[in-house]
Amino acid sequence: MTPTEAAPIGVWIIGARGDIAATLMVGARALTRALVSDTGLITARAPLARLPLAAPAALRFGGIDTGTRRLTEAALSLYRVSRTISRETLDAVSADLDAIDEDIALGSDMAWDPGEPDAALPPLDLLVERLRGHLRGFRQRHDLSRVVVVNLMSCLPGPAPSPLRDDLAGLERMIADDRKDLMSPAACYAWAAISEGCPYINFTPNAGCDWGGIGALAAARQVPFYGDDGKTGETLLKTALAHLFAYRNLQVLSWEGVNLLGNNDGRALADPRNRAAKLGNKERVLTDILGYAPHAGVTINYVPSLGDWKTAWDLIHFTGFLDVPMTMQFTWQGCDSILAAPLVLDLVRLADLAQRRGESGPMTHLAGFFKNPLGVREMDFHRQFEALLGYAEACLTDLGQADAR
Amino acid sequence: MTPTEAAPIGVWIIGARGDIAATLMVGARALTRALVSDTGLITARAPLARLPLAAPAALRFGGIDTGTRRLTEAALSLYRVSRTISRETLDAVSADLDAIDEDIALGSDMAWDPGEPDAALPPLDLLVERLRGHLRGFRQRHDLSRVVVVNLMSCLPGPAPSPLRDDLAGLERMIADDRKDLMSPAACYAWAAISEGCPYINFTPNAGCDWGGIGALAAARQVPFYGDDGKTGETLLKTALAHLFAYRNLQVLSWEGVNLLGNNDGRALADPRNRAAKLGNKERVLTDILGYAPHAGVTINYVPSLGDWKTAWDLIHFTGFLDVPMTMQFTWQGCDSILAAPLVLDLVRLADLAQRRGESGPMTHLAGFFKNPLGVREMDFHRQFEALLGYAEACLTDLGQADAR
Amino acid sequence: MTPTEAAPIGVWIIGARGDIAATLMVGARALTRALVSDTGLITARAPLARLPLAAPAALRFGGIDTGTRRLTEAALSLYRVSRTISRETLDAVSADLDAIDEDIALGSDMAWDPGEPDAALPPLDLLVERLRGHLRGFRQRHDLSRVVVVNLMSCLPGPAPSPLRDDLAGLERMIADDRKDLMSPAACYAWAAISEGCPYINFTPNAGCDWGGIGALAAARQVPFYGDDGKTGETLLKTALAHLFAYRNLQVLSWEGVNLLGNNDGRALADPRNRAAKLGNKERVLTDILGYAPHAGVTINYVPSLGDWKTAWDLIHFTGFLDVPMTMQFTWQGCDSILAAPLVLDLVRLADLAQRRGESGPMTHLAGFFKNPLGVREMDFHRQFEALLGYAEACLTDLGQADAR
Amino acid sequence: MTPTEAAPIGVWIIGARGDIAATLMVGARALTRALVSDTGLITARAPLARLPLAAPAALRFGGIDTGTRRLTEAALSLYRVSRTISRETLDAVSADLDAIDEDIALGSDMAWDPGEPDAALPPLDLLVERLRGHLRGFRQRHDLSRVVVVNLMSCLPGPAPSPLRDDLAGLERMIADDRKDLMSPAACYAWAAISEGCPYINFTPNAGCDWGGIGALAAARQVPFYGDDGKTGETLLKTALAHLFAYRNLQVLSWEGVNLLGNNDGRALADPRNRAAKLGNKERVLTDILGYAPHAGVTINYVPSLGDWKTAWDLIHFTGFLDVPMTMQFTWQGCDSILAAPLVLDLVRLADLAQRRGESGPMTHLAGFFKNPLGVREMDFHRQFEALLGYAEACLTDLGQADAR
Repeated sequence: MTPTEAAPIGVWIIGARGDIAATLMVGARALTRALVSDTGLITARAPLARLPLAAPAALRFGGIDTGTRRLTEAALSLYRVSRTISRETLDAVSADLDAIDEDIALGSDMAWDPGEPDAALPPLDLLVERLRGHLRGFRQRHDLSRVVVVNLMSCLPGPAPSPLRDDLAGLERMIADDRKDLMSPAACYAWAAISEGCPYINFTPNAGCDWGGIGALAAARQVPFYGDDGKTGETLLKTALAHLFAYRNLQVLSWEGVNLLGNNDGRALADPRNRAAKLGNKERVLTDILGYAPHAGVTINYVPSLGDWKTAWDLIHFTGFLDVPMTMQFTWQGCDSILAAPLVLDLVRLADLAQRRGESGPMTHLAGFFKNPLGVREMDFHRQFEALLGYAEACLTDLGQADAR
Repeated sequence: MTPTEAAPIGVWIIGARGDIAATLMVGARALTRALVSDTGLITARAPLARLPLAAPAALRFGGIDTGTRRLTEAALSLYRVSRTISRETLDAVSADLDAIDEDIALGSDMAWDPGEPDAALPPLDLLVERLRGHLRGFRQRHDLSRVVVVNLMSCLPGPAPSPLRDDLAGLERMIADDRKDLMSPAACYAWAAISEGCPYINFTPNAGCDWGGIGALAAARQVPFYGDDGKTGETLLKTALAHLFAYRNLQVLSWEGVNLLGNNDGRALADPRNRAAKLGNKERVLTDILGYAPHAGVTINYVPSLGDWKTAWDLIHFTGFLDVPMTMQFTWQGCDSILAAPLVLDLVRLADLAQRRGESGPMTHLAGFFKNPLGVREMDFHRQFEALLGYAEACLTDLGQADAR
Repeated sequence: MTPTEAAPIGVWIIGARGDIAATLMVGARALTRALVSDTGLITARAPLARLPLAAPAALRFGGIDTGTRRLTEAALSLYRVSRTISRETLDAVSADLDAIDEDIALGSDMAWDPGEPDAALPPLDLLVERLRGHLRGFRQRHDLSRVVVVNLMSCLPGPAPSPLRDDLAGLERMIADDRKDLMSPAACYAWAAISEGCPYINFTPNAGCDWGGIGALAAARQVPFYGDDGKTGETLLKTALAHLFAYRNLQVLSWEGVNLLGNNDGRALADPRNRAAKLGNKERVLTDILGYAPHAGVTINYVPSLGDWKTAWDLIHFTGFLDVPMTMQFTWQGCDSILAAPLVLDLVRLADLAQRRGESGPMTHLAGFFKNPLGVREMDFHRQFEALLGYAEACLTDLGQADAR
Repeated sequence: MTPTEAAPIGVWIIGARGDIAATLMVGARALTRALVSDTGLITARAPLARLPLAAPAALRFGGIDTGTRRLTEAALSLYRVSRTISRETLDAVSADLDAIDEDIALGSDMAWDPGEPDAALPPLDLLVERLRGHLRGFRQRHDLSRVVVVNLMSCLPGPAPSPLRDDLAGLERMIADDRKDLMSPAACYAWAAISEGCPYINFTPNAGCDWGGIGALAAARQVPFYGDDGKTGETLLKTALAHLFAYRNLQVLSWEGVNLLGNNDGRALADPRNRAAKLGNKERVLTDILGYAPHAGVTINYVPSLGDWKTAWDLIHFTGFLDVPMTMQFTWQGCDSILAAPLVLDLVRLADLAQRRGESGPMTHLAGFFKNPLGVREMDFHRQFEALLGYAEACLTDLGQADAR
């Protein structure tokens, strides 16, 4: 393991023209130019900052998207509507964004609905081969030592359950038989990335990463991967707050959460079929932390004027001593892509580190980044974070021993 | 150590006619009669519930107060104004409250202001001796094996600092020389309790428990003690939430907290001199958890109509990635005595256990109960609670070994 | 017109065993006994208090309900779950409630769904005749000079539109032909009440009162009536606040409202078919006041633990000068039946006055009581209230002239 | 009266380098260039938009300030910290701002504290004469037909009351005798403006405009004037909402308001002496609207990170039927200068119109713009606004008659 890492690292993003991707690219370039601070990056705080992680300047971005909006357009819209990027930053990184545009493929046939797949689409084996070709091309064009793949695409309906997803042979069979009714686009991306030896991060609620067959592939190819569904807002707060009630033995009667959002993600979630996966991830956490299931409603409403500003309001109704009912409420006014983008940067850097360290399979030390952390029962944010700190300390110890040798 | 504990245990309360005390007594009696659930009691949840703690039915209450309001009056007022006690519970425990009234002494000369002590008061040595006499009388009247003393009196101005408080000889000197300008009523209570071998809990911000001389006395007399200032509302939330910002490397610019309350405690805190100690305890926690000092305003306003219902509103202004400012706000609508009373019951049971186990000095495993936990740097509620769980597990292990022998 | 009115007045309530009805009856009896203040009664404030309205003591209650829960049971549940009625009040009025129980008929066949009416039900002409018989019996049993009928039943699905509802002949035809697919239970109640010469108030969103045929009947029978849908919470706030944005020329982009409630009304509204009428009434008001239609979402979620406590949270997203986006949010924590019951009492007293004054048809001066005021375009609460004040002043002037004569 | 008004009109601003002034100037220039909409301007909505008001393009800005920060610097800071002005707007109006800078005088000796006036300052008669000279010079340099003077300076301590302020002779005596202990800077500005025949608007809580002597001067000189203290945030909401409780006969027990702000105004108000005038204006409104005085706390806290974003949180505790306590709370997140600047523009245009129409003395139709409207008892925002509409309609009627002639 090399303590410093200067060779360029590829970051291949599925949904590369979306708000989170644009914010991530703008941010990485602005950090490289010292135009902004490293606030929001977990990997910038102790002790993670001492790990030999890829510098933002070392990252090369590329990816795929179902649309053709140019990155500067995406960034301009964030500047105008959500007011998150300053004009100065925008101007400074425009040329960089134009260059990245050259590395973004069009994937307009990669958003099928497994409930009614379009018969005119190419067969799955061709699609998967094309995705793998993208990754090889990206690697060669930029002479990249490694590429990390991150899924940021919007929420889509999931396929019907099938035992085929449980093992490697089943997945291969689904692809060979062109079963677009059973195989989601997200699962194809995971398959393609891991087949190419690229660490894979599923930051979305889209199904695939949690299938046994994907885990088996990662084990076979010795590739680290993780997901699902980045924890950026209301669920983050739930997993940070719920233990308060558990510790004090206060009985949560109802925890009602309302999420208002106005970006593309919000538009996609306005469709109840797309929303199903997301809601599942959000509801599970309370039961796991409290040890019982209070009434737990989750509402997601699309409010276009809010743009990227996600507003969540939660009401917590609970009883205390003498069974007296009391309430707490909170309002979280956060900018979705501003909260998500640095997590993606953290995940890329940590996945790349894991690969260099020879780790493979689910990176459970990253549980705290996700609403539905794969292979982990612990939903409490505090304990999840302590696991990450423990991992970092262990890496640093390994590194110290390597230095000493 | 006896696994079960049926012998009566005394609970001597300073401020025995206040809202918290009345709620505590009503609650303990209602629990004994199975009229209410044990919600809100930390000692009722796993694994603490497995400790050999005194049963609520085993507790005998007594104490001292500067006023003469009868306990049934206090309880009736809670039923009427704050609607926390039900009529049925009130009726069921009225006779019990009348009986406890007989064990509450009048301490009208125990609330001096060290800034301008009343020269007409008896000298300190007499006052302290009287307090010790109360404890001995209480113990004898009810044939109590042990008595735990809890300070619940309202916030009073603290005395000027003096090196005399730092050791045993200094404290003895202050008492002998009748230095009411240096010695607070709260310190006298601590001195009297510990001198009588009674575990002592300071649930208030009043100074005394944190003085070196009190610690020295506790060490000499082998008595456990702890404080200061029960953590029931806004500060509890701060210590439960602030780590979220620390973990995610979000920069807290300002954390502005507003507390509205309408009970006697609120009236006392409307006086800026009384408020000083409380505000100090509330401000410290953020800096300790975040590692830097954001702008942290704390406002306490007296709003009589709210009665015992404490409403806290906090605004947290922070920056994330690209230095984008975001906000979170919360409103906590809790009933002060309903939140505080079960903690007092927990503390009494745990202090009694500590004494039976032969522990002495500051009970730092109880840090999570207090705004200003003595002898502890850790302000994060999560870590404080894990320390308590660790203590409980260790006790259970000891007990298991004892059983096994 | 008699200045004082001591003769007993009947109040016939549809939904007489519900929370609002129980609160209304408890309140009227508690007022008569001077156990509570007249807070919440609009008719108790100037200048309405000077009108010759029926005293609460003069009201005799009866009605119909689809269930059989006794009134004391309903009141006990409000005392226990929602903590709105005190034990003392409950004890004082229990006998009164038992007496009223004798005047509540069972209407279990009066809650059909026009979408799928039960063929086993009696034909409409029989049902209507039975309802009229109830009213005649009530009047005779208590020797009542007048009876006001108030509809408080839960929200039900509405029938498909039909031109038959537009005139008297059409309504008669629907009843004669037993068209339960076109005629709602609520329309039957309105028909029966007005046919019997009783003023009719529709406090619910159920369809009927707004049909041309009902208006024609009221005109023919010279009976006053009004509705629809009592304005008690979030919509009240909308109609009180929206003008602020209109006056200051602030552009409302989105007004997103969330209503959490846990009573029977909430359970009924959890069914999307029942919810449709309610949502329609709630959405209309903003457009009428602002003069344009902002994004206006309304969510109604059933949260059982809240009982009768309706919690509404609204987020208002608007732009000001330089098109800068800003936000306002509010949380309304009101008790539904406590807010609704006094309005019903006001409406009964004012409808009775109107009948005594010889008025008939829609009582548009009562627009401010309703979400969807019949025959009125003005949605601003302030202007609606000024219309009521104007009406009261006119009545007082008439009365003064009558006195002077 | 000329229907259209193209000749240039002067706007002389006291506090011309502050945030509100900078926002006003940027906004007027951006409106002229059609870079922003007219949202937030009351004079842009019907029917006021039909009045023959000075176009934004016709306004020439100048003024005085105690500091020397250039306007482009002020605007840049608003762009950077509060994110209210876009980069494009800023760039487009920079040259305009530079030009206005030439017309801003330095008034560093115009901010004395009447409690301890600095003996080294020039005498009052010289100061007043200098102020008048500024106005004459501004008028001449730009060949202005009329100049409106607006006071926007920060809150300062007020002078001790004196009967001298009650009439013209007294004011003249104070100036002649150099009584800086009795005469505030704000009163000097009012005196100078009105003496020069300029309409005067006091948008601040600073004393002066409400003195009898100033009214007498305006009457003598036939000049219109008005104030005090622009109503932009929490008080606006109070005067828009309080009638809701009055109409419904809900008893307000407590209305507790908290204002957090981070601009210069906030820094000034952090000094309790400066705050006194402001708090007085804020407290009065509830009593006037409700007809009784609930507990009404107002807290103003300085939170620097909020910049120009004023966050107000109010808790309203009230009782309804059966004396049941309920609560409402709201959070207002508005940008102070964005809310204030368009009001100033409205006031300038309406004051100029009043002067052209030959009106003089207090412009009571503008009551709805102010926290403490001079000579008006009506505090309800709705009724105040209807008075403004009535005035506008009367002007339009006059104008129609003039057109017809």
